[in-house]
Amino acid sequence: MSGVTGLPGPPRVVNVGLELFAETLAKAGAAVVHTDWRPPAGGDPRLAELLVRLGDAGDEPNREWLRRVQAGGATLVGVRPAREAIPALARGRVLLHAGPPIAWERACGPVRGAVIGACLFEGWARTPDEALRLADSGALAFEPCHHHRAVGPMAGIVTPSMAMLVVRNEAFGTEAYATLNEGPGKVLRYGAYDASVVERLGWMNRDFAPVLDQALARARGVDLKSLIARALAMGDECHNRNAAATSLLVRELAPHVAAAREGDVARALAFMGAADYFFLNLAMAACKAMLDPAHGVAGATVVSAMARNGTDFGIRVSGLGDRWFTAPTPLVEGLFFPGFGPDDANPDLGDSAITETCGLGGFAMAAAPAITRFIGGTPALAIETTLAMYEIAAGEHEMFRIPALDFRGTPLGIDVRRVVETGILPAIDTGIAGKTPGVGQVGAGISRAPLACFVAALEALAVEASAG
Amino acid sequence: MSGVTGLPGPPRVVNVGLELFAETLAKAGAAVVHTDWRPPAGGDPRLAELLVRLGDAGDEPNREWLRRVQAGGATLVGVRPAREAIPALARGRVLLHAGPPIAWERACGPVRGAVIGACLFEGWARTPDEALRLADSGALAFEPCHHHRAVGPMAGIVTPSMAMLVVRNEAFGTEAYATLNEGPGKVLRYGAYDASVVERLGWMNRDFAPVLDQALARARGVDLKSLIARALAMGDECHNRNAAATSLLVRELAPHVAAAREGDVARALAFMGAADYFFLNLAMAACKAMLDPAHGVAGATVVSAMARNGTDFGIRVSGLGDRWFTAPTPLVEGLFFPGFGPDDANPDLGDSAITETCGLGGFAMAAAPAITRFIGGTPALAIETTLAMYEIAAGEHEMFRIPALDFRGTPLGIDVRRVVETGILPAIDTGIAGKTPGVGQVGAGISRAPLACFVAALEALAVEASAG
Repeated sequence: MSGVTGLPGPPRVVNVGLELFAETLAKAGAAVVHTDWRPPAGGDPRLAELLVRLGDAGDEPNREWLRRVQAGGATLVGVRPAREAIPALARGRVLLHAGPPIAWERACGPVRGAVIGACLFEGWARTPDEALRLADSGALAFEPCHHHRAVGPMAGIVTPSMAMLVVRNEAFGTEAYATLNEGPGKVLRYGAYDASVVERLGWMNRDFAPVLDQALARARGVDLKSLIARALAMGDECHNRNAAATSLLVRELAPHVAAAREGDVARALAFMGAADYFFLNLAMAACKAMLDPAHGVAGATVVSAMARNGTDFGIRVSGLGDRWFTAPTPLVEGLFFPGFGPDDANPDLGDSAITETCGLGGFAMAAAPAITRFIGGTPALAIETTLAMYEIAAGEHEMFRIPALDFRGTPLGIDVRRVVETGILPAIDTGIAGKTPGVGQVGAGISRAPLACFVAALEALAVEASAG
Repeated sequence: MSGVTGLPGPPRVVNVGLELFAETLAKAGAAVVHTDWRPPAGGDPRLAELLVRLGDAGDEPNREWLRRVQAGGATLVGVRPAREAIPALARGRVLLHAGPPIAWERACGPVRGAVIGACLFEGWARTPDEALRLADSGALAFEPCHHHRAVGPMAGIVTPSMAMLVVRNEAFGTEAYATLNEGPGKVLRYGAYDASVVERLGWMNRDFAPVLDQALARARGVDLKSLIARALAMGDECHNRNAAATSLLVRELAPHVAAAREGDVARALAFMGAADYFFLNLAMAACKAMLDPAHGVAGATVVSAMARNGTDFGIRVSGLGDRWFTAPTPLVEGLFFPGFGPDDANPDLGDSAITETCGLGGFAMAAAPAITRFIGGTPALAIETTLAMYEIAAGEHEMFRIPALDFRGTPLGIDVRRVVETGILPAIDTGIAGKTPGVGQVGAGISRAPLACFVAALEALAVEASAG
């Protein structure tokens, strides 16, 4: 407590910490500024000690992480069947799913729905019951997308026949993959599996994917990193709002699609432009492509992936290898579509938090004030959310910039230490899936990565540091 | 001068008007808030008296103006040759130009260049010299676009063969027209007239316009009012920044263009998407379509049109019939392209200020923080510019909303009385043409409508009020 000015008059006080003092002083007529300071790590002495022990050990490795991510590119070069892109899927009845590893028995409703749809699509089952029996029998292998350089929104189910977007990071000679977006309405990613879902997947594989692949060849690829940067100046955060990015993509590819004059090019263009989310899958693959080469920097305390399987939330940390640090996945706060409410919601789901891991989504929300019409809150919330994320970020993106913040780069690189120290949890813009298989999307909002994942990762970092 | 708080301590003062008082008080140690109050009409007693005499006489007519503008729609329905859309152009060698009426002798450089190009395009002359001799001979008739329900960016030259965008206001059964945007580089609207300019105009008429017209027929038109509203949530102000609107347009029309399978549809799509400005001409025609039915409201003190011919700046006022109130057109403050500077600039030019007249452009600049990278200033300037325009606006647009201002409607309807009273001049986002014929665009920035136009209109309003 100290005076803040030499001027005469009533006492002027800056109060730090407990609000009670501020209230008492204010009642006594003093001019009080209350700041919401809290002790590091929520006052937990064990965590505070771990933080002190780790000190600034991660700083240089984190700078290397930032250098690699900033140096990376992301070019959409084509569309390939999953079994060609991902060797594991050539082995047989293997399904990839979103989030950290999970046994089939613990899978949530939307994942179960999507597995049913995928089995019908692959011809592994003729009815939903048959598909469930097949899964229960243990005849299907389940593995995370993230273990195969892939990401999938929501349920994130990938099977061998599915067409995959191929995004190249030329700077490191690597690739990342994501499924194609199915558009709005009843879709596999939200756990719907009726005939319309399976038929659409068939059309996408048979007709749409070849048209898109040929257009990409004619266009010599699309620079997604640059496109995302432009979309940020156009009100997108490229997770839950992709209106500009989808429009820019169609604008860039339309001449090359139209030049095909084989396949139903008009339907292909209509499909790409039908909903703003078409670009989300591209953004996810782009982020995965730019982040993967920065995974495995010894000593780095920055998150390489955040992902949810609808049951567990998991993070991977650059300096901690392939381990996942998991906790129960949280509920999403937001707005529900007419006829739905919180009781219908599945907890947070999908690999799409890869965007936040790369400085987009909730971290870039200040770029997307209009998103608040969709998820609730006001444009001020969008600004505040991004500003808070700087508190836990290792750096700022050099190319992803926010006009409303005077073109400041987005907060980039979630530092496990700063999350535990401040208690500020990564904000994730996300859709909300219905918890019952087959229902589909029921809303959209913001979720918060669980603190427990970061505490566990901090403990592992401390062990590594002691060993090193 | 009055104390603003009952608290003890040094004097606290709100200073109104002259800054000198504030400076003196501040030096004496007082806490001073300076507000930039000025006497109405800059202290001119004659104008102040006119303002008092007019009082609130225009308020109800202005509300009727607002009702008509808000009720209007703007649907792009097709593309037609100018001679079919505009009867005057069927009469022979008639050219329309931007801005208020002007004799050929007083035409600025870019207008002269564009007239040369138009004569070459129409086959009225074989060389630039022949075109100039033809114009000097008095054999060409020059009339403002605005006299024929049309608008043209920059020089705004329209000749009988040119393809015109047709925008319908279904609510009032009216139409408005604008030329097609030629894309970036050397273009007629900026006064360029070399072979590439004339050839491109030929291709646009022959190949592009029919493809676009057929696509619009298949699409059953494009709702431009709704598209503009979406673009405002995507960083456009739809005058000097049309990145989102152009992308949304291509996205919406691409399937219908591709469905043609006749004509060079790939080139048509590439042409529409080649530069962000493609949508500008559509925005202008849409604003003209929405504003025209609100022209001619007796007693209304709101501006129906602001336009520049590169020599004069002119406004029309809803309650003052077809008269123009003119003053010399100002220079544009902004950024110049490499190799150009203020000495190369033509003064402000074009009908594009129709967007500001309809609550877009400079009036909606807060929606477009990224525009400051193109015209100078910071995102704060964009916000301040829009906030200032509310001071002179008759109302707020119900559909054109700005996310960053908590979705407030854009300032709509420039009230002549408030411009004179406050001295706040309408801000116009605009391109800068080179003053030498044939040079083209040299920069972009902000111009301010001259006060003299509004003073003259105020005087005419007072005369009308006395007569009425």
